[in-house]
Amino acid sequence: MTASPKRAVALGVDIGGTFVKAALVGPGPAVLERARLSMDPAEPAEALLRRLSETLRGLEALVEGRPELPVGVGCAGLIDARAGVVRTSPNLPLWRDVPLVAALSAGLADPGTEHRAAAVLLDNDANVFSFAEGFYGAAKDVANAVFVTLGTGVGGGLKLDGRLYTGSCGYAGEIGHMTIDPDGPVCACGNRGCLESFVGSASIVRRARKLIEEEGRQSQWLSSGLRSLDDLTARDVGRAAQAGDALAVRVFGEAGEYLGVALAGVINLLNPEVVVLGGGVSRAGEPLFSSVRSTVLRRALGLSGKCARIVPALLGEDAGVIGAAMKAASAGGS
Amino acid sequence: MTASPKRAVALGVDIGGTFVKAALVGPGPAVLERARLSMDPAEPAEALLRRLSETLRGLEALVEGRPELPVGVGCAGLIDARAGVVRTSPNLPLWRDVPLVAALSAGLADPGTEHRAAAVLLDNDANVFSFAEGFYGAAKDVANAVFVTLGTGVGGGLKLDGRLYTGSCGYAGEIGHMTIDPDGPVCACGNRGCLESFVGSASIVRRARKLIEEEGRQSQWLSSGLRSLDDLTARDVGRAAQAGDALAVRVFGEAGEYLGVALAGVINLLNPEVVVLGGGVSRAGEPLFSSVRSTVLRRALGLSGKCARIVPALLGEDAGVIGAAMKAASAGGS
Repeated sequence: MTASPKRAVALGVDIGGTFVKAALVGPGPAVLERARLSMDPAEPAEALLRRLSETLRGLEALVEGRPELPVGVGCAGLIDARAGVVRTSPNLPLWRDVPLVAALSAGLADPGTEHRAAAVLLDNDANVFSFAEGFYGAAKDVANAVFVTLGTGVGGGLKLDGRLYTGSCGYAGEIGHMTIDPDGPVCACGNRGCLESFVGSASIVRRARKLIEEEGRQSQWLSSGLRSLDDLTARDVGRAAQAGDALAVRVFGEAGEYLGVALAGVINLLNPEVVVLGGGVSRAGEPLFSSVRSTVLRRALGLSGKCARIVPALLGEDAGVIGAAMKAASAGGS
Repeated sequence: MTASPKRAVALGVDIGGTFVKAALVGPGPAVLERARLSMDPAEPAEALLRRLSETLRGLEALVEGRPELPVGVGCAGLIDARAGVVRTSPNLPLWRDVPLVAALSAGLADPGTEHRAAAVLLDNDANVFSFAEGFYGAAKDVANAVFVTLGTGVGGGLKLDGRLYTGSCGYAGEIGHMTIDPDGPVCACGNRGCLESFVGSASIVRRARKLIEEEGRQSQWLSSGLRSLDDLTARDVGRAAQAGDALAVRVFGEAGEYLGVALAGVINLLNPEVVVLGGGVSRAGEPLFSSVRSTVLRRALGLSGKCARIVPALLGEDAGVIGAAMKAASAGGS
């Protein structure tokens, strides 16, 4: 146990690609205690949510007086936040219209009651990330910020005039499906040439493999023979780029140019003070960021381009659980 | 005189490409009286502003009791709204850092006083258009709307969560400089492949000329011999498209596809209820709108794309004077 769990304000859950992370979150916000559940794509939703309820009850039991805490859940995919339903999620192929809020609320209710009194809140992972970074992380002191999560998918969120902006039906922020090249490859969304198809982790891996096959002998990273090419992940390419491997630096430099084209457009449209980049692909660091920054300066309108700082996310792996918990705490009035 | 000028609430000015329009605006808002000044690019700023002051005094004299009315001015170009200064304007090449608000305020002051007591307000034409259509026109009943002005330049504005959104430094809304094709032609702004270079009126004329030279015999519009090709304007092409000329319809269909690519990205990002298209090029009507709509449905994410209605501006040529007047009235507390 880390520090004073009795001061916990909410529970946060982050349903990610490999694990479900849960945390007891206190003022600050600070993560007071963590838990992690494995994810098996073959497991029915009910079973995973039952395990998650038990984990959350266990975390709650650490708090003095065992109060009912608000619970926030962030999940990748098509989320109906108002209804509390996960429509589809890329990491959980069996999930279709899963009433997550109702299921967790029942699973966490005291014996004899059907639903939990404290709020249970669901939102998509990009909105949760934007809430965390927008109010407690890299953009907490600015009125207007754009958030981008770079991973398997490319998501995003907006803080405008000091508030999270979610659009007319809650679908705003989908920067990953802005068109970069009208004649580009067909994306899963049906459009052509989406940003996601140029900078998502699958594209990073594909580009790295191609360069290694063509020019592999020049890569110190490949010649150090760390892995088979089939097992290559975007994380490997990111680590190599951070270590200065020329081929990996080139892969992230190219991705940064595509991202810079999209961000220059977004900056011209929204004139934000800050653009926050998070997610696994962003951990490549400087090779990606310097390419994004120089592309934005070259392409955005002068004053808007200079106004916008492009910075890494501050809360790292904790952004999901912190954002979900604090969103639930502010909604639940804790 | 049209109707009850004594109920006027403000004066509106629209500094356009060919004329300066001024109007006495009453509640509703309604244009009660109009005036028009010619524009000569060789005329010094001071002289034009002196003529404008006289025109505005003349309009004010029509109002019973001759009250001091708030004055709003919309102007194309790089506008410093806070300082009340026109930095540069494409239609007025001699204008550099013209202190328009101070000059009009002095020109309209009563003898013996240096400045006018009532507010004089300056903003760029796209913001003024967005204010007019957002609160009194096509988007008056919605919370989230995107505005695009299609003319020599392509400008824009945003109404988000019920308020005009202008960004961190007042530069938001520049949809005309979003990248459509990263390898496209160099734009005046320094970027490559901006939307403006594909759908601005110069591009409409260029594309029409090219098609006429290549396939002119098939165009009923050219064969009717209305004009010489050198004198061709975007308005001519628009009229021909409205009349069903196949070649002109094709020109606007292509422009609509480019605009649709940009708008699909903006719709994915902002999830608005309405996109309002105004400005001279938008008057081509159905050939442009049907192409924009089908491109957006094909390219935007399903739910966001279906949510967003793409509609023509409602206030027509009056949007500039109405928006400027009502903005001044709401700022001046009239």
